Amino acid sequence: MSQGHLLTPGPTPLPPQVREALGRQIIHHRTAEYRAIFKRVISGMQQVMRTSQSVVALTSSGTGAMEAAVVNLLSPGDKAIVLLGGKFAERWQKLCQVYGMKVVLVNVAYGDAVDPAAVDKALRENPDAKVVFGTLCETSTGVVHDIEAVAAITRKSQAVLVIDAISGLAADLCETDAWGVDVVVTGSQKGLMLPPGLAFMSVSQRAWTLVDQSKTPKFYFDLKLSRKSLEQDDTPFTSAVSLIIAQEEAVKLLLDLGMPEVFRRSAIMAQAARASMQALGLTLFAKRPSNGVTSVNAPSGMDAKKLTKIMWDKHKVMVAGGQGEMEGKIFRIAHMGYILPEDLIAGIAAVESALAELGHSFTHGAGLKAAKPMLDQLSAEAVRR
Amino acid sequence: MSQGHLLTPGPTPLPPQVREALGRQIIHHRTAEYRAIFKRVISGMQQVMRTSQSVVALTSSGTGAMEAAVVNLLSPGDKAIVLLGGKFAERWQKLCQVYGMKVVLVNVAYGDAVDPAAVDKALRENPDAKVVFGTLCETSTGVVHDIEAVAAITRKSQAVLVIDAISGLAADLCETDAWGVDVVVTGSQKGLMLPPGLAFMSVSQRAWTLVDQSKTPKFYFDLKLSRKSLEQDDTPFTSAVSLIIAQEEAVKLLLDLGMPEVFRRSAIMAQAARASMQALGLTLFAKRPSNGVTSVNAPSGMDAKKLTKIMWDKHKVMVAGGQGEMEGKIFRIAHMGYILPEDLIAGIAAVESALAELGHSFTHGAGLKAAKPMLDQLSAEAVRR
Repeated sequence: MSQGHLLTPGPTPLPPQVREALGRQIIHHRTAEYRAIFKRVISGMQQVMRTSQSVVALTSSGTGAMEAAVVNLLSPGDKAIVLLGGKFAERWQKLCQVYGMKVVLVNVAYGDAVDPAAVDKALRENPDAKVVFGTLCETSTGVVHDIEAVAAITRKSQAVLVIDAISGLAADLCETDAWGVDVVVTGSQKGLMLPPGLAFMSVSQRAWTLVDQSKTPKFYFDLKLSRKSLEQDDTPFTSAVSLIIAQEEAVKLLLDLGMPEVFRRSAIMAQAARASMQALGLTLFAKRPSNGVTSVNAPSGMDAKKLTKIMWDKHKVMVAGGQGEMEGKIFRIAHMGYILPEDLIAGIAAVESALAELGHSFTHGAGLKAAKPMLDQLSAEAVRR
Repeated sequence: MSQGHLLTPGPTPLPPQVREALGRQIIHHRTAEYRAIFKRVISGMQQVMRTSQSVVALTSSGTGAMEAAVVNLLSPGDKAIVLLGGKFAERWQKLCQVYGMKVVLVNVAYGDAVDPAAVDKALRENPDAKVVFGTLCETSTGVVHDIEAVAAITRKSQAVLVIDAISGLAADLCETDAWGVDVVVTGSQKGLMLPPGLAFMSVSQRAWTLVDQSKTPKFYFDLKLSRKSLEQDDTPFTSAVSLIIAQEEAVKLLLDLGMPEVFRRSAIMAQAARASMQALGLTLFAKRPSNGVTSVNAPSGMDAKKLTKIMWDKHKVMVAGGQGEMEGKIFRIAHMGYILPEDLIAGIAAVESALAELGHSFTHGAGLKAAKPMLDQLSAEAVRR
């Protein structure tokens, strides 16, 4: 483009190291050289995903990996509990229904986080539920759910816990093994700092047991084929070679920084985003805000779509609008992956400018002022990695 | 790598224009800018695929698109005819069986091409068959099937014809509309000169009728969702943005040259490959050889794996070995996509050198001599595009 600042919750900007790797000449995937790269990527992803369990790579968007979780863990007629709360959680519901599973819904209002007590109740009422499907960061509302609490409750049941961390990974803490999350699903174009087209899943021993029992027909997303290929550092079907090679660079960036530092930085970016919006007199949509994306209510009577349009047209800052019933009511500023403090500053400045143009009254510069002391904690050098 | 010459039937080398595009900063997919690119790619792919029908893009390897064809065109219990003849044709069989379709097999020995009369017989005996699944270039044997004849026969029945052109597209002629092929499935890492991770399918009106009738559960590969998104130059799930953007460059290279010239060049490359191998006293494995890949029998008593290993270790030329029961017996030289005459020359030279090392007796230089007059027809300038 038309570069500008991309502050959307996926795709996120690519680091230069990733772009360099993407532009390399292709290599063949059935070679010792590629297998060694693939092995390093999987091992690196285990660290990023906070797990020592299997990590499987799929050539698909994140939705493909969500489908893989549903069709591999369950058989038609099996019961699953879906924790709602946004457009992406509803995708779990949709997937389970399409494939003929019985779905028990735990309703969560948009903007709210799931109540662990409601999960407990659902599990007690449905002791035959095989899987609980939840979401780490619900991208459509900007909520991060309390997966630690959900996992602690699910652990007391026979059910396996599957979490969509597509936009949450490497932004919101998800201690996969320590908390006891059986399956974590993610995509490449968010905190993993890659273009879309690649998905990863962690799979626990408990989850593999369900995989071995599942009778749902599948082929491209058959995790048993992935497990077999993984023994040879390979995938069952031609993998997205250039994306895997670039993922090695992105994983290196994350691990060189260290995951605790990655999480500290995303927390500070999120605090800065939230503080700046509140300093402009705006309120946050998410009751339990994610560290990857900040959802903000447009001022009463203002069309959020006009605001985001001005931000892009005049300032080349792209943020996301609201989806579904939140359309026109909220806007969402992402600060995950390779979105840098300077991008966030440009974003805040563009919000201020667009708000002024649309007649919202606030103290000019208040947003930037509120964010500055927080962003100053992130030294430019380390941010650039 | 370890560059060298990649003469494998996918992935194939990337042109510099594609590598440049892959390395560009990412843009958001739900923007006017991206939709315009997507529209140009789809329109260009229609020309490359020789069709004015719908072309759908999927974020997956070619196998994902094969699965999409099976689960969208048929319902469990429906009857399909599968034309065999190699590892990839057998994937149609496998997919149909996994999803509960009744499969009628038309057997074809490895190395042979399908006999159109056998297709006619199968269709007469199975007038209730809804789909015929076939292959343009069977990558595992190097055979190009006579899809024009198969299509002419299938057209007389109610069945829809689905062709795997993953490795055949833009190498072996496939006149999708003129011949009456309903669905053509392809992947990005062969004649389309891209890394793997993207797949395209053309879908005829007749095929859409089956899509609307199919009761097989699907979500990620649901073509009805793709059709709806296509109206807005979009995909239902986040597309592989960087691959689509690079595909525009690759399609431009093909269309600037013109499809007739693309086919003429691949035919000449294939003739040169075949003539050179025969000049070394070797025989061809494929009875009806593809213009994309040449499969060659190793001399009696020689392990083809030793030959290909020497070619890579000593000459940095990578060709493919045999798969399944052809392992150790044949090797396959690809000349599709951006594999240039100079790569093929390096390949022939490496075959000569490895044959000599393994004790095969032949006139040194005979392979190169046989290929030269043919390759001289391809002016270096135009080849470089």
